[in-house]
Amino acid sequence: MISIEQALKIVEQQEIERKTSDVDLDDSHGFYLSEKISSPFDLPSFDNSAMDGYAVSGIYDYYEIVGEIAAGDTSEKSLQSGEAMRIFTGAKIPSNTTAVVMQERTNEEDSVLHVDERISEGQHIRRQGNELALGETVFAPGHLISPASVGLIGSLGLNRVTVFKKPDVRIISTGNELIPPGESKSEGQIYESNSYALQSALNRFGFECREKTHIKDDFSAVKSGIAEYLDRSDVLLLSGGISVGDYDFVKQALEENGVTQLFYKIFQKPGKPLYFGRKENKFVFALPGNPASSLTCFYIHVLPLLQRFSGAAETGLQRLSIPISHEFEYGSERPIFLKAHVDNQTVSILNRQSSSMIHSMAMGNALVFFDGPKSVPEGEIVEVILI
Amino acid sequence: MISIEQALKIVEQQEIERKTSDVDLDDSHGFYLSEKISSPFDLPSFDNSAMDGYAVSGIYDYYEIVGEIAAGDTSEKSLQSGEAMRIFTGAKIPSNTTAVVMQERTNEEDSVLHVDERISEGQHIRRQGNELALGETVFAPGHLISPASVGLIGSLGLNRVTVFKKPDVRIISTGNELIPPGESKSEGQIYESNSYALQSALNRFGFECREKTHIKDDFSAVKSGIAEYLDRSDVLLLSGGISVGDYDFVKQALEENGVTQLFYKIFQKPGKPLYFGRKENKFVFALPGNPASSLTCFYIHVLPLLQRFSGAAETGLQRLSIPISHEFEYGSERPIFLKAHVDNQTVSILNRQSSSMIHSMAMGNALVFFDGPKSVPEGEIVEVILI
Repeated sequence: MISIEQALKIVEQQEIERKTSDVDLDDSHGFYLSEKISSPFDLPSFDNSAMDGYAVSGIYDYYEIVGEIAAGDTSEKSLQSGEAMRIFTGAKIPSNTTAVVMQERTNEEDSVLHVDERISEGQHIRRQGNELALGETVFAPGHLISPASVGLIGSLGLNRVTVFKKPDVRIISTGNELIPPGESKSEGQIYESNSYALQSALNRFGFECREKTHIKDDFSAVKSGIAEYLDRSDVLLLSGGISVGDYDFVKQALEENGVTQLFYKIFQKPGKPLYFGRKENKFVFALPGNPASSLTCFYIHVLPLLQRFSGAAETGLQRLSIPISHEFEYGSERPIFLKAHVDNQTVSILNRQSSSMIHSMAMGNALVFFDGPKSVPEGEIVEVILI
Repeated sequence: MISIEQALKIVEQQEIERKTSDVDLDDSHGFYLSEKISSPFDLPSFDNSAMDGYAVSGIYDYYEIVGEIAAGDTSEKSLQSGEAMRIFTGAKIPSNTTAVVMQERTNEEDSVLHVDERISEGQHIRRQGNELALGETVFAPGHLISPASVGLIGSLGLNRVTVFKKPDVRIISTGNELIPPGESKSEGQIYESNSYALQSALNRFGFECREKTHIKDDFSAVKSGIAEYLDRSDVLLLSGGISVGDYDFVKQALEENGVTQLFYKIFQKPGKPLYFGRKENKFVFALPGNPASSLTCFYIHVLPLLQRFSGAAETGLQRLSIPISHEFEYGSERPIFLKAHVDNQTVSILNRQSSSMIHSMAMGNALVFFDGPKSVPEGEIVEVILI
């Protein structure tokens, strides 16, 4: 049994061979850049107006209006002292412009502009290169392409980007007692739902489950199922069949498929019987069968591997330090992830925390982490992981 | 000009005609339930073992092992006092079971089980209906289907769910000065990137941009472009062309298409010139052209409408109260959303806050909100919106 930190470190230290791919900017959201992006020009590329209004030359109360510059107008224009030109947001300012005056602060009559404010030199002018200079690094490799990143990359004129490919993920669930949702259930059977929850969790974080299947607890079926899926996957998730009674079974099926164990069992609650293994550039997690354990292991341990495989510079979910809304006592030495709900101000730990219970997880949006026994009063800052 | 609160209230108060759809559980993530889900049976459906170990009858140091119960075994089994059966996690406990003993706390020799711990009555037994009772409400309409929700719905045996349909969204960008990324740029032109950022933002929150197009600043082209897109959209986003100089133009094109203005201009920074209108059950936002303004308006004002259209019980992004890592002064009366970065402990406001600048937004993961002039010392709690 290893600690949570050791488990995270083992995942973090895996050398991964990654592939890259060119994608359209429209499809790039959620990928991680595989190459540095530098600015191909100054941004903005020319001094331009930050407002709809007038470009004026010199500082006066009145100006003679000598023309108009539309956004996109590329001709060279020039002002003499005392002259003004109507200008729109983003349009290139004429040479000899002292400042831009907002339309709302002016009156126009018979081609004479009256200004109602004290003009400061340079006001409402966006200077060339003010956001980014030619050649400046915009994003380093490993940067997550967010909506704002897409906007910036587009404004640099790039319509394709080179990103790391995401892993091909497949899921195998095992267990004789499990039947798929939608079928009718006999006494003693339970519905197999973990593979559905895992598939949704993959989707939620921008990954895809290429295929999934259910296999009965038959050694040769499990072994050949693993062989088949492992062959075409980068990451294989096994759901169920890894607690004490099943461990030898699954471990042997993995071993006979050439998978080397990297860890088994983490000193944590829920999700103690988590298995992590590797074969060449392929990775296997065998997740515990309890629904809350399975998803907790996904959020804490599987997701960082998927993100690292995808080239992420930073992995894991957002962690925060937030005051708890009620006193809480936790007695065990085993570090615990508790289902919780974060509102605008505080975090509350929810009822029904058992490893088998997923209702509280579905009503929550966070996990509270305690690294051992703790007695916290209301208002104490606790460690929160947003899920 | 209206306040942020007024704008949010106008969006919130729109009556929306929604359609529903049956989707596979596998595809249900990110939708909002249109119907209440009640538990069709007790969950768990039978008393079962929380551990791999032994079901024992009575409290003794030694038991006679009389059999084994695999997970999924549906036969009726029974114990006499002093007897034990090997049992696996999730398996139905035999009648007359007093407790389950973990495998790790036992020794077995010649069909005799020796127990190394003090047994408490009922330990490691999950009682029927302990998580959910037959008929109990599991989720109310408007519940967001998260990975944990998918897991729970699956464990109730449901493989289809009824959800609200998401809106059909289309984007029109306008502006003569704009050219698409990938083309070569002349002096005075700028790359059109807002529609790409908006499309990514839609994807990020589980919405799809069905189509997008760019239209030059020609009244009849804009008017007929709006007519065509509005006809087949639930929500139309217009990008650019809504600041002072263009407002009358876009407003008239929308009016002539039968769109009624619900608000124009919000007392906020960035994103003041935001337009919101409606025609029957169709909604239109015209977003400002500055990149940071456009995305800020999306996160704060557009997203809640999209979520409400999709039937969400709760809308908007996660807001938090977090200490700021540095002192900060803001002088204007206009409420402001500042690009920021949240780490585990604190939030930091980033440099380069101008409305035209999106680099800081791409390097951040949050907005800090100030409702007016404020001078905050390091460590002061500020309002944060995670993006």
